[in-house]
Amino acid sequence: MRTAFYISDGTAITSEVFGHALLSLFPTEFEHQTISFVETIEKANETKAKINKATARSKELTLVFHTFVNNDIREIIDSCDGIIFNFLEHFVEPLEKKLNMKAKPKAHRTHSIHENSYDYRIEAVNYALANDDGSVVTNYEDADVILVGVSRSGKTPSSLYLALQYGIKAANYPFTDDDMDELKLPEFLKPHKKKLFGLTIDAQRLIDIREGRMSNSKYSSARQCKMEVREVEKLYKKEKIPYINTTKFSVEEITAKILNETGLQRYKY
Amino acid sequence: MRTAFYISDGTAITSEVFGHALLSLFPTEFEHQTISFVETIEKANETKAKINKATARSKELTLVFHTFVNNDIREIIDSCDGIIFNFLEHFVEPLEKKLNMKAKPKAHRTHSIHENSYDYRIEAVNYALANDDGSVVTNYEDADVILVGVSRSGKTPSSLYLALQYGIKAANYPFTDDDMDELKLPEFLKPHKKKLFGLTIDAQRLIDIREGRMSNSKYSSARQCKMEVREVEKLYKKEKIPYINTTKFSVEEITAKILNETGLQRYKY
Repeated sequence: MRTAFYISDGTAITSEVFGHALLSLFPTEFEHQTISFVETIEKANETKAKINKATARSKELTLVFHTFVNNDIREIIDSCDGIIFNFLEHFVEPLEKKLNMKAKPKAHRTHSIHENSYDYRIEAVNYALANDDGSVVTNYEDADVILVGVSRSGKTPSSLYLALQYGIKAANYPFTDDDMDELKLPEFLKPHKKKLFGLTIDAQRLIDIREGRMSNSKYSSARQCKMEVREVEKLYKKEKIPYINTTKFSVEEITAKILNETGLQRYKY
Repeated sequence: MRTAFYISDGTAITSEVFGHALLSLFPTEFEHQTISFVETIEKANETKAKINKATARSKELTLVFHTFVNNDIREIIDSCDGIIFNFLEHFVEPLEKKLNMKAKPKAHRTHSIHENSYDYRIEAVNYALANDDGSVVTNYEDADVILVGVSRSGKTPSSLYLALQYGIKAANYPFTDDDMDELKLPEFLKPHKKKLFGLTIDAQRLIDIREGRMSNSKYSSARQCKMEVREVEKLYKKEKIPYINTTKFSVEEITAKILNETGLQRYKY
């Protein structure tokens, strides 16, 4: 199997996203290897040796995705026995012309603590954890958005992703069995109705997820799951709460859709 | 100010990473706008109108980063009043030649629920939350890694990032005031010593963070913070626990360094 290397003087997240997007177009498998923080000539030489070894082992040229801006290190990596993909290189010159401005390469440009949004993100993570699962219902004043839905419809991972990736403060509140009899919006949510965003999920998927956690329980029974989903969807419609069905979507897709529908301000780009 | 658009038929995360990496090389500011889930001709035309409006408003050509693989939609976007950057387009043909294989473009290739790793990631998030902050110390058998450190040294955001991004199950355990007198490794951590990874932080940064949470307390005092940092670092050295100082690093950088040092297996690429 051919190996793909993702290399950078920082986290290598950009190289990974770049390489992954490109390789995902090809109907074949690759071995993946990330080497981050290649910040010295010595580390660059070590990395080159690893690439050459992978090429020798598989007898196929290794693919190398990198984003180096330091010339000394770049030259070492570019001289390896691999096929080099450096998307920055190709696009920098045309962009310089369009912007009428020279690029000023420096290391750790992205995914570092020096991004303006960093403190927002950590604060948002703390907020999401402190206001997860309806544990506290008195801090909604500070929320950017409050996700609501039945247990296991995707609220917690979505809240955390909104915080970590975008610096958005997302609380979440679960509608539980006790609420379900003629489900109404709890009093403490009413003043924050404009911040509410509903998640729903297909009953069968909900049954499967809950069975994995608590099998043969009322909680995971078809009757209960169907009733809960029916009740919350009725509530969303009645109260005009925007909502999405998360069944077929990843956390990344759910949060992108929430951003789309709400126009929430992001603190990180 | 010039606007940069990030557009895709999916989450647009790839376009954002691509555009952000490129723009970060230039010493100027941009307005950012993401338009995700451009999946229909109608939405493509709406998007084109938005781009044209932005160009008309700022009197400078808008920058458009996209990764469309559907030709009908791509042609509409490519015909807008903007400067188009499509990194897939440039690299697909050379890669086809090298792999001796045609690309098979399909939508939602990345960041979707169909990635094999998806269930791992959600399970890992649940694990991280259930085993955060030493709340439970009986589940360490299932951990891939256990982060240890003083309160506010970065354990929780790092655990969550490891889970969400990489599908790695990270528990975390805080050394607290009660442990500090002749700090020893708690008995329940000893059987899992190989999974331990330590975080430390400069005392001044710790003071600043704790002051923000509980000002003028013993918890945030210089004396306490210095003592705690000194004690944990002594413990890491004595017990040969690998550790890093998180003071100058983002969550992305901390977790990339943890992966580097431990060689932990990732479930997502």
